[in-house]
Amino acid sequence: MPLHFFDLAAADPAIRFSPYCWRLRFALELKGLPASTTAWRFTDTSALPAGHRTVPTLVDGATVISDSFAIARYLEEAYPDRPSLFGGRVGLAHARLINAWVDSAVQPLMVPLIVRDIWAALLPRDQDYFRTTREARLGTTLEAAQAGRDQSVAAFRKALHPARIALRDAPWLGGAAPSYADCVLIGAFMWARSISHFELLAADDPLQPWLDRMLDLHGGLGRFAPRVPA
Amino acid sequence: MPLHFFDLAAADPAIRFSPYCWRLRFALELKGLPASTTAWRFTDTSALPAGHRTVPTLVDGATVISDSFAIARYLEEAYPDRPSLFGGRVGLAHARLINAWVDSAVQPLMVPLIVRDIWAALLPRDQDYFRTTREARLGTTLEAAQAGRDQSVAAFRKALHPARIALRDAPWLGGAAPSYADCVLIGAFMWARSISHFELLAADDPLQPWLDRMLDLHGGLGRFAPRVPA
Repeated sequence: MPLHFFDLAAADPAIRFSPYCWRLRFALELKGLPASTTAWRFTDTSALPAGHRTVPTLVDGATVISDSFAIARYLEEAYPDRPSLFGGRVGLAHARLINAWVDSAVQPLMVPLIVRDIWAALLPRDQDYFRTTREARLGTTLEAAQAGRDQSVAAFRKALHPARIALRDAPWLGGAAPSYADCVLIGAFMWARSISHFELLAADDPLQPWLDRMLDLHGGLGRFAPRVPA
Repeated sequence: MPLHFFDLAAADPAIRFSPYCWRLRFALELKGLPASTTAWRFTDTSALPAGHRTVPTLVDGATVISDSFAIARYLEEAYPDRPSLFGGRVGLAHARLINAWVDSAVQPLMVPLIVRDIWAALLPRDQDYFRTTREARLGTTLEAAQAGRDQSVAAFRKALHPARIALRDAPWLGGAAPSYADCVLIGAFMWARSISHFELLAADDPLQPWLDRMLDLHGGLGRFAPRVPA
């Protein structure tokens, strides 16, 4: 039975925008594991398997598992004959820190760049939920949070410095081949790309060649993914 | 012939405080490679082997190499029978990013916590060099930079969040055993510990047990290292 996961969708069910679900999608491709998806919305609270509340939620036969990093670790253990996401136990431990770095130091700086654009792409019922929860977290309106993005993008670009340094030595964050670290960082870019046309990187950013390589992987999985109209 | 490296020293030659040299010292211990050191001062410009300008500089027979990460990679290749610093090629690539994260997002936030304390520990001739170069970088005096440290420590503690997350899953950043990632982060703490008594972490910080484990490694290499008087 092929793998299946619940994947966060915009109003257009073809537009999938969760950075965590994108980590999983790229990880499944790296391991060569086909998977089907169900479009899930923020307000589909009862549509996930019992006991699960967040996406991605992966269903693999009798195994049901949430949390993108837990899923990646599960895939590595359950499919050891497939290409490795982590390159061993030290690579896995290091990836855990890199995953947390993207969660805590990169993606939060992207919120003011795209948060109003996310809202605009949602179903009306999701828009109400999203505005209420995010404005409470932000302490301001979605519109005010995003208003200064031409300035606030500088902090996001600066935060990516460790990735630029790593990519001086190798074409991928995983070294000679992509690893789960690449899946994590491309997830952040796919989040923005799916629901926004804001330019995250300057044209001459040394990260741009890596981003282009990532978008081209797996037959252009990222490059040709449905996104909101410009 | 045992390994030898040039190691940044305070006025007291027993006090070694470079975070990059500490990375090397812990890496050498992890690999079980004995090494002798020469105390080197900022103003000993002509004391390093020809063509080398920064510490650590490692001398291994005919090989002379600077830059702590380049040295770590050299040790891994030259001594493959010893315990691994990286656990393979993916672990190495991931460590490169973690190394850059500590360089660019952690250690810069420590400067205002200890910069005046560093100055106070130096030889007079190094003090002049250090004050001039660092005040030019900081755009203010060493005293003014360090004055607000009871407040600025919060940003440093926040920046360590990815390490806290990683240490929820494993006792070391390298997983079940220390890796070069642990050497890099302990280097930052040894930098401060050697020349300052400012408390970097709150007593209940979840990083504290990891820090204690690191200080106890290798017979208490970190814990019993000479430091300035309280």
